[in-house]
This record gives sequence, C-alpha cells and structure tokens, in this order.
Amino acid sequence: MPEIPRMLVVGSVAYDSVDTPSGKNNDQLGGSATYFSVSSSFLTNVAVVAVVGADFDPGDRAMLSDRGIDTSGLVQVDGNTFRWSGSYREDLNDAVTLETQLNVFADFSPELGDAHKRSPFLFLANIDPNLQGSVLSQMSTRPKMVACDTMNLWIDNARPALVSLINHVDILLINEAEALQLTGCDGVASAAENLLESGLKAVVIKRGEYGAVTFHREFTFAVPAYPLISVVDPTGAGDSFAGGFLGYLSSVDDTGHDAIRRAAVVGSVMASFAVESYGLDRLRSLSASDINARFDAFVELTRFHPLGGGQGLPVRPQFNN
Amino acid sequence: MPEIPRMLVVGSVAYDSVDTPSGKNNDQLGGSATYFSVSSSFLTNVAVVAVVGADFDPGDRAMLSDRGIDTSGLVQVDGNTFRWSGSYREDLNDAVTLETQLNVFADFSPELGDAHKRSPFLFLANIDPNLQGSVLSQMSTRPKMVACDTMNLWIDNARPALVSLINHVDILLINEAEALQLTGCDGVASAAENLLESGLKAVVIKRGEYGAVTFHREFTFAVPAYPLISVVDPTGAGDSFAGGFLGYLSSVDDTGHDAIRRAAVVGSVMASFAVESYGLDRLRSLSASDINARFDAFVELTRFHPLGGGQGLPVRPQFNN
Repeated sequence: MPEIPRMLVVGSVAYDSVDTPSGKNNDQLGGSATYFSVSSSFLTNVAVVAVVGADFDPGDRAMLSDRGIDTSGLVQVDGNTFRWSGSYREDLNDAVTLETQLNVFADFSPELGDAHKRSPFLFLANIDPNLQGSVLSQMSTRPKMVACDTMNLWIDNARPALVSLINHVDILLINEAEALQLTGCDGVASAAENLLESGLKAVVIKRGEYGAVTFHREFTFAVPAYPLISVVDPTGAGDSFAGGFLGYLSSVDDTGHDAIRRAAVVGSVMASFAVESYGLDRLRSLSASDINARFDAFVELTRFHPLGGGQGLPVRPQFNN
Repeated sequence: MPEIPRMLVVGSVAYDSVDTPSGKNNDQLGGSATYFSVSSSFLTNVAVVAVVGADFDPGDRAMLSDRGIDTSGLVQVDGNTFRWSGSYREDLNDAVTLETQLNVFADFSPELGDAHKRSPFLFLANIDPNLQGSVLSQMSTRPKMVACDTMNLWIDNARPALVSLINHVDILLINEAEALQLTGCDGVASAAENLLESGLKAVVIKRGEYGAVTFHREFTFAVPAYPLISVVDPTGAGDSFAGGFLGYLSSVDDTGHDAIRRAAVVGSVMASFAVESYGLDRLRSLSASDINARFDAFVELTRFHPLGGGQGLPVRPQFNN
C-alpha cells in the first residue's frame, strides 16, 4: 500500500502569465496546489491532488517529485492545463485578472486514493467549495486538521456550499477583502468574530504586504510581512503562506497555541520568499539555512522586551487611579 | 525661572467636526499638538506651543493643565480657532477633508520661551516645515531627540523646506502614503532606505489599522495595530502614536534600540485607545492600569517562541545543503 502522506492538498496546477512592475513573465508554473506543495515540501511529506492537461511539461512533474512531493494524485487528461493571466501593475496587493482559461480544470472532480484518504492534515486550496466538500467527505478518517481557502468568485456564486464547508473545517485562511465580503463586516476583528461563530478553531486573515492576523478562539496573533525592498511577483504568496503554516504544524504534529503562532511566522517566511522572484523561482531554490535565516529575521523584526517584574510602564503618578 | 519641560510639542490646536461610520461629532477638541500632548502626558512632562482664538473654551485649557501639560505656550489671540472638518465614511484609513478654516493658525509664528528652548525632547507636529525649522533653530541647546511629522500638503508645496528639515531631525514619523509620495518609491522598505540616506536615525512609517514599521539605521521593527472590533474616530491616531512613542523615550531618558522598539509599542497602545471614541474622549479617561493592560495585550498579540538551542526549523534533510 502506498505511503500515507502527512499532508494532502487539493487545488489547482496552472500555467500563469503575469505582468508586474518588474516586467512580464509568461507560462510560469503556478496554481494554488503547486505553491502550497512546494512551500510545504520543505517541512513535510505532501501529496498533491489536481488535474493537468496533455500540454503539462513532464519536467514540471519531475521537479515536484524530486522535492519529495507525492504526485500520484496529479492526474493528466486530454486538453490544456488551466491558464491564468493577471496584472499587478496598479497595485501589488491586488491582481487584476486579464484572462482565465479553465481548460481541463472545468471538469475537475477530485478522486482520492486510499492512502491519501488517511492523511492527517488536509488543505483545501481555493477551488469550488462543492469540490472542497467532496474531498473532505472522501476522507476515510477525519483529519487531525483541515484548513481551507476561498475567493470572491465562490463567495458570490457558491455561498451556501462555502458556508457549509466552513462549518466542517478547523482553519480558514482568507484574504482580508474576502473576509469582509463573506461576513459583511467592516473590519477584520469583527469579521473574524463572526466567522468563529461557526465550527472554526481559527481564522487566518492574510493582508498581503501588511502581514497576517490569526484569530483563534482563544487568542489573537499578528505577524507582519517581511519588509522587502523589491517584490517581483506576488502570485502564490497566500498559498505559500498556507504551505508554510500547515507544513510546520504537520511536521511538528502539534496544533497547540504556541505551534499555531510559530506556524504563522513560518507561513510569513515562505510567503516572503515566494514574492521575491517570478513564480516558483525563489521558493524552489531555498535551502534550510535560507529558511532559518529568514525565520530569525522575523524574530528580530518583531521582538521587544516586555516590562518585567510587574513594574509596568512609567505612567505618571496622577494617572494611577 | 519656569521649569524646563522634558518634552516640547509645536503643532495645531483645533476644533474638529468628523463624520465616521459611527456618526457625526461637531467641534470636538483636536489638533496635532493636542492629541500629542494628551497622549504623552501619561508618561512625561510636556509643554505645548500652539495658537488658539478668542473662541477657545477655557475649560479645554484647564483640561490640559489639569493633566500636568504646560500650556504657557498656548497663545490666545483675536479671531477663531483653527477648524477642520472631515469624513471617514468611505475609508477609516483615509480622511476626506470637507473643510479647513485656518483662522488664527494662518498667522501662527511660534516663539519659544526660555525654558521651552531647553527641552531635551522636541516634537515638530504637522505644520509648515518652515515653521518647524524655525522652532528647531530657536532651541538654545540641540535637543537629545527631535522628531517631526508632515503631510501631503507640505510635500507638494514646501518640499525644499521639508527636505532641509529632515536633514536636521532624528526621527521622521510619517504615513505610508506620504512616505511613498515624498520619496517616489513604490514600497515602504525602499522609501525608508531612501529617507535614511539623510541625517535621520529612524523613520517610523504609520500604516493606520496595519500598524507601524520603524526603520532605524541599525534595525527594523514592526508592530501591528491592535485589532479593534469598533473604530469610532481615527482622528488623532498618528499624533497619539507619536505622543506615546516620544513620551516613553522621554520618560525613560533612553534612545537606545530596545527603548525605541518598546516606544513603538507604547505608541501603538495610545493610538489604539485614541480611535475608540470621538476626539479625546477615550484618551483622557485612561488610567495607568488601562495602559498597562493594553501594553500586555500587545505582548500577547505579537509573541511567539523562537526556536531555541540552534535547532532551527524542522526542514527536511534533503534541503540541508
């Protein structure tokens, strides 16, 4: 029987064409499942479930396999691979979609293999929430942790399925604008409060260059984005974040509070690398020491000395009431 | 001879009318020097230099004095107090100015008293950079630390004076949009790098609900904003941040790296209170325990356990190259 992966991701594998302030790059390997799996592959044993077309480059599959990613669920069918084209010329935080060719992705209906059905960590990347729900229902044992992402398209067009899904996952990772759209709230704290009224244990609100805030039922943790001098291509930052976040939790097999805080930092580390080059160029070239050095840089970026010994801030005596 | 204040602020005292998602409030006490001095009054002995008109409510002066703020430099002249009217209906992070009546502020020409000229900490709040420069040149001894703020109006209309001023101050506190406008850069990290090429020791970039990043020549420190369920009135958040930031440094008489990191947290604490009610309502009602509790909440909001013992993240062996 094939090995049970520590982590399963279901999502898209795509060829992206992007236009950013740094220039254009066409037909780069992308897709939510790709960024997630490459990012999490540094930390855990991950399997991908996705569909590609006859035009899929065997070298791209080999690149994933060579990283230890289980590609047995990467199904190849007749037709063309999903293609997305987008521009970040106006705003690095907000892609404008120029063209979407669903191609083979239009008929994607994920079928899990027996080993995949036993994965203890599951990430339902941004696809139709009906498919996300179908994948979750195929799991032979309820995973230790299930997380999902979504986008404005599904909030508009598949809200009932999305709401139902959210009631069955542990962690929702979602962009700020989409959290507000989904809840109708005007701020992230109230949006998170609203979302935590479902069965969710935590909501991670991704804010691009402003970092991410994890609203857990029992605590809130904010991590900034790494202040980069040059952001080349924001594509895949959110999925790279999710890959670092869940990859870390999966690798330490811990879903406690301290692990979740640290996971959010690892997610930010991986996202900060993802945007430094086009597509996967930077992510796939990383070494353990690169990742640890960036983690240490986040420690430096955020550390301050709390006031010890109960002395408190030096507030003037007249305000001690 | 009058007491030398630990901190001097020169800026505006105004009556503001605001329209926010929570509603309207007219003729509330405001102005950069007011928010700064009330915020810093919790921590340090602060003197205000500003001008008000014949319509200025003696109760407002008494409120400041009762907090231990030195109002001997709050000059009252014929005419009306500066009035600003703004709306946050569209975006809590971005005020739309509806009306500005400069009134007595149009002829403001700050003249420092002898005691004020010896203040070891100086904040040049957002006024014409020619006036900011005039105040700095009146100081009889170069203060231990000089900080300033500015706005888009002066970047457009008084750039040479502003650039000259920046060459003579230690810390620039500036909104993100204005940092980009001033430098022509497209990101905060490159804007800060550009600004640090002047004589500045640090640039603090204020990002509203996304927090603040302090770019010091020798380190970078990011602090999130406190995730509030309800923001009633963002007016004065930046000046309240500056008041907490400089008030803390002045109170501990320390401008070292650890003090600056902690000062940015204290600034965020004070800004988080400022926006909870209209005008100064929340700020002026705070006790020492309120402030310390919010500081502790920032510790909780941002803390994570770094990996000890040099073990690093559990990156898989094949990436240890």
